Amino acid sequence: MAKKNTPRKNFSDRFRELGLGIGRTTSGKLIDKEGHFNVIRKGIGIHGFSLYHWLINLSWIRFFVFVLLSYILVNLLFAVLYWMIGAEHLTELDATNMHPFWHCFYFSSQTLTTVGYGRISPVGELASMVAAFEAMIGLLGFAFATGILYGRFSKAKSKIIFSDRILVSPYQGIKGLKFRIANTRRNELIEMEARLMYSFLHEENGEFKRRYMSLDLEISFINMFPLPWTIVHPIGDESPIQGKTAEDFSRERAEFLVILKGYDETFNQYVHQIHDYDFDEVVFDANFKPMFDPAAGAGTVVHLDKISDFIKL
Amino acid sequence: MAKKNTPRKNFSDRFRELGLGIGRTTSGKLIDKEGHFNVIRKGIGIHGFSLYHWLINLSWIRFFVFVLLSYILVNLLFAVLYWMIGAEHLTELDATNMHPFWHCFYFSSQTLTTVGYGRISPVGELASMVAAFEAMIGLLGFAFATGILYGRFSKAKSKIIFSDRILVSPYQGIKGLKFRIANTRRNELIEMEARLMYSFLHEENGEFKRRYMSLDLEISFINMFPLPWTIVHPIGDESPIQGKTAEDFSRERAEFLVILKGYDETFNQYVHQIHDYDFDEVVFDANFKPMFDPAAGAGTVVHLDKISDFIKL
Amino acid sequence: MAKKNTPRKNFSDRFRELGLGIGRTTSGKLIDKEGHFNVIRKGIGIHGFSLYHWLINLSWIRFFVFVLLSYILVNLLFAVLYWMIGAEHLTELDATNMHPFWHCFYFSSQTLTTVGYGRISPVGELASMVAAFEAMIGLLGFAFATGILYGRFSKAKSKIIFSDRILVSPYQGIKGLKFRIANTRRNELIEMEARLMYSFLHEENGEFKRRYMSLDLEISFINMFPLPWTIVHPIGDESPIQGKTAEDFSRERAEFLVILKGYDETFNQYVHQIHDYDFDEVVFDANFKPMFDPAAGAGTVVHLDKISDFIKL
Amino acid sequence: MAKKNTPRKNFSDRFRELGLGIGRTTSGKLIDKEGHFNVIRKGIGIHGFSLYHWLINLSWIRFFVFVLLSYILVNLLFAVLYWMIGAEHLTELDATNMHPFWHCFYFSSQTLTTVGYGRISPVGELASMVAAFEAMIGLLGFAFATGILYGRFSKAKSKIIFSDRILVSPYQGIKGLKFRIANTRRNELIEMEARLMYSFLHEENGEFKRRYMSLDLEISFINMFPLPWTIVHPIGDESPIQGKTAEDFSRERAEFLVILKGYDETFNQYVHQIHDYDFDEVVFDANFKPMFDPAAGAGTVVHLDKISDFIKL
Repeated sequence: MAKKNTPRKNFSDRFRELGLGIGRTTSGKLIDKEGHFNVIRKGIGIHGFSLYHWLINLSWIRFFVFVLLSYILVNLLFAVLYWMIGAEHLTELDATNMHPFWHCFYFSSQTLTTVGYGRISPVGELASMVAAFEAMIGLLGFAFATGILYGRFSKAKSKIIFSDRILVSPYQGIKGLKFRIANTRRNELIEMEARLMYSFLHEENGEFKRRYMSLDLEISFINMFPLPWTIVHPIGDESPIQGKTAEDFSRERAEFLVILKGYDETFNQYVHQIHDYDFDEVVFDANFKPMFDPAAGAGTVVHLDKISDFIKL
Repeated sequence: MAKKNTPRKNFSDRFRELGLGIGRTTSGKLIDKEGHFNVIRKGIGIHGFSLYHWLINLSWIRFFVFVLLSYILVNLLFAVLYWMIGAEHLTELDATNMHPFWHCFYFSSQTLTTVGYGRISPVGELASMVAAFEAMIGLLGFAFATGILYGRFSKAKSKIIFSDRILVSPYQGIKGLKFRIANTRRNELIEMEARLMYSFLHEENGEFKRRYMSLDLEISFINMFPLPWTIVHPIGDESPIQGKTAEDFSRERAEFLVILKGYDETFNQYVHQIHDYDFDEVVFDANFKPMFDPAAGAGTVVHLDKISDFIKL
Repeated sequence: MAKKNTPRKNFSDRFRELGLGIGRTTSGKLIDKEGHFNVIRKGIGIHGFSLYHWLINLSWIRFFVFVLLSYILVNLLFAVLYWMIGAEHLTELDATNMHPFWHCFYFSSQTLTTVGYGRISPVGELASMVAAFEAMIGLLGFAFATGILYGRFSKAKSKIIFSDRILVSPYQGIKGLKFRIANTRRNELIEMEARLMYSFLHEENGEFKRRYMSLDLEISFINMFPLPWTIVHPIGDESPIQGKTAEDFSRERAEFLVILKGYDETFNQYVHQIHDYDFDEVVFDANFKPMFDPAAGAGTVVHLDKISDFIKL
Repeated sequence: MAKKNTPRKNFSDRFRELGLGIGRTTSGKLIDKEGHFNVIRKGIGIHGFSLYHWLINLSWIRFFVFVLLSYILVNLLFAVLYWMIGAEHLTELDATNMHPFWHCFYFSSQTLTTVGYGRISPVGELASMVAAFEAMIGLLGFAFATGILYGRFSKAKSKIIFSDRILVSPYQGIKGLKFRIANTRRNELIEMEARLMYSFLHEENGEFKRRYMSLDLEISFINMFPLPWTIVHPIGDESPIQGKTAEDFSRERAEFLVILKGYDETFNQYVHQIHDYDFDEVVFDANFKPMFDPAAGAGTVVHLDKISDFIKL
């Protein structure tokens, strides 16, 4: 009796274990091309922003432009300061006819980078004080840049590629749902785990709700990942996608969500990657072509550009 | 027979598994606003202090002031040294009427930052030696600052927000104890685990002792945490808080302790966060308002500022 | 009935759990001397290349040459720029008869390293602007080098040595397959796990396929690894290598694959190492000689150079 | 029958799971004061040495002396080079009567630190080339120092203190073996695990061998470690130390080995600590005094200097 009042984990609870909610009814992709969630968080203001996070994830070209613009901006600010103090407090060894503001600007750049040629140098207390402060700011700024640079390239950027399509192929007398992944980096990934979730719209009291179910995999863990891995969900009698057709998947706006986890030996970090296949990326009665080079001699040769190649049966 | 003499883990032992002791009878909060324990450790002297730890956890404004004051202090120390050696050992290209001590001070700053304009430069062995030493100290000091800066922003600072109140709401025919959390950072948190502990004063032989009990959760693990998560303890017949009223919680000075653990994909680190709800933060017969934007189109929009919004039923 | 259609993990599936495939029929070693896989990945172009990864794994001498050449190259590039602007825009305090190009080159080096003696300094806007840019590039470049240097030596480089041979020795009344490992670094390795795989060519429908089987170990986990560890697979009746001779191993091109995992306390990282023994590295009826120094007094003395020493029985 | 030939893990095998061997018969402590093993590894030459590892573990004062000496040495080397090129290739703005070698030495220091006042500067190709090289070496050297400095203070240095003695005290009607630990750092340690091993000399065929046995703990895991933790092995009928006296422990040269593992939230790293109690550190019929301050008001006050305080019963 006591037990009965304590509710068991029911069907709709288990869905929520993914952390994805059940209210989503839109057909837009859950996960974008870069493996991030399509979620917009509002009402948190500036607190959700992290300069470090933003700088770490910037492309290299944008990062470099950001550094360059910051450098110019800081120099301009100090140039204005020196100019207000008076350009005559920055002596020159021999006079040139440069405009005093640029005179201040280049002195600022020579101070900020601590290059300090000395052809222009501060005279008087105020100019000396500002220059002493600027040199400190310069060193801190480049200390900051050093940290960001290290953060940028010490972050494990696994690049696992997925076959474009997910296939329904013959598999050991029954059917199997198959897709293929490979590591494109020289980083050695080990202890790879894979999970496959099936998500679909389900009618409940006349309302459509998105549901999630786990699909069992033939192999869900491999020790090492030097070769491509074909991940297979055997479509047996217990599979929730048993007997489903392309029309079924389309009607229920099916999605297949892949969650990968592994350990990157080069960066000594755990890496995670998520990917989703839409209902229109399912191909029925097809099989993947081999990626190995049959003519290869002593070593094992893999053609990674063939990862999506399949033939209709 | 043999087994009987080996004591089983009893009730009061299990409390201690949290590592929190049973002797605490004060009503002060166990955990402060920043998620740290209210424990004062004495008798350990300076050995418990870590400069690195202190500098890592300083606010940015205090950290900057600390760096600036250190910079000024070191410059003053070396300025005194140069002044004692004699300001005349620091030649100037053309004389100014600055006080010799400031002359030494600015020379020091130009050496410490390695800007070295050369307008002032050391002459003679003693001044040259101190300058050579100071430049090395300067580089080491900024190497130190680089390390601290990197340490500061490479530390995963998860910012999970909690609903202000913990609610007792209807839940699947019975009652449920509910609170809500959300990730405010863009960091992607995965593999989130939650635990909920119930702590209360219990009379034992006329003495009040604080006890701890674990409360089962409907879902205690989610794979991904892009959306807010409402954590629910179903108050079934087996729940230790079955039938308790606001007066009961107040009398026994109840606390609800939340322990969260997850993996931060941006920083590749495990993050932990603890939070406690006091007995006067429990609201009976209320439910949370939705945080999702119903009018949103293709994407999922979440209003994080509504995390604490609830309605009395 | 339902269960029967869902295929159980069969024999050939279990092989694939290693992530090594079953199509490999070559006799070349699976793993090279440095513990990397002999796999060539093609068709991915430049995307698989990571400058950071490459610089991290370069030998120290090659790394230093790379830095030196980069430094010279960047200086040459800027020297060309200054020369095109006109060497006369770089004033000298007193003229020398150095060739103008080298004049530009050394000015560039003094700017890039931010040493900035000032004996040569930029005059005019264009030269000043390029110099300001170069000094920034210099600081970023050395920030980059700092990151790479830290990445290089903060990477846990466990150096576990293996006995040259794998022995078949008497073991507790039966036979045992034995090899010996030791940690050569002062790094303290803890929580060491070992796995041993047996790989062989197997005829299937007239075709040879490589198969993998796990060999049970007497001890597969040790808490601490301060002393050499002799890893033993007892060749009992259930062992797949029961009764096999040297000829059998040779005919089926047997390989013994060792997978080690541990936690490096010095670097606070998990370390993994793989090694393989070929069929011609198996020695029958032999036993390892002790590595401990019997004459040692208070402490424990281990001779790591004796790790491969064995005697034929 | 088949099963019988495959040897089960026997008694002496289980001992080896610790990785400590069974041949050690000396009475010297297994673990030194700093928690390292008393093992000397020979025959490995210089390969076992890691400069990084050595520099990371040096005391701060020795580390600073090492940096200073390296700095002086490198300056001396370059000073010799400049001197051989000819001190006259280093012009001075106005001549002083310093010895030419020191002239070279201070020029070197101004180049290595990139301070480059310019009072002394290189003239001619050879001197300029060496100076360009030295400035690069200087920057790399300080990049190296930055990495080492960061490595030094980013390494989690847990400082868990242990009670001096291990006590045999009354415990729930039977006896218990007790010791006490506390975290002296402000680092928050979580998920602490403890294991206790009992090691003793055992006569086998007239030969003494050291054996190891695990002792069950009342609590072997705590979630958080803000307060001292008294770890207890209940000496029930199944305990291997049931009924043993001080004389027994002395005769068999008993040792009690503690293995701690936890997660340091400040450094986001796993930390491990080992400690051993010798037979002469066991105190019979005693109990620890409380470490909490009874007079404390709102917060919890712990006196860490009382960790070893006990009373004889």
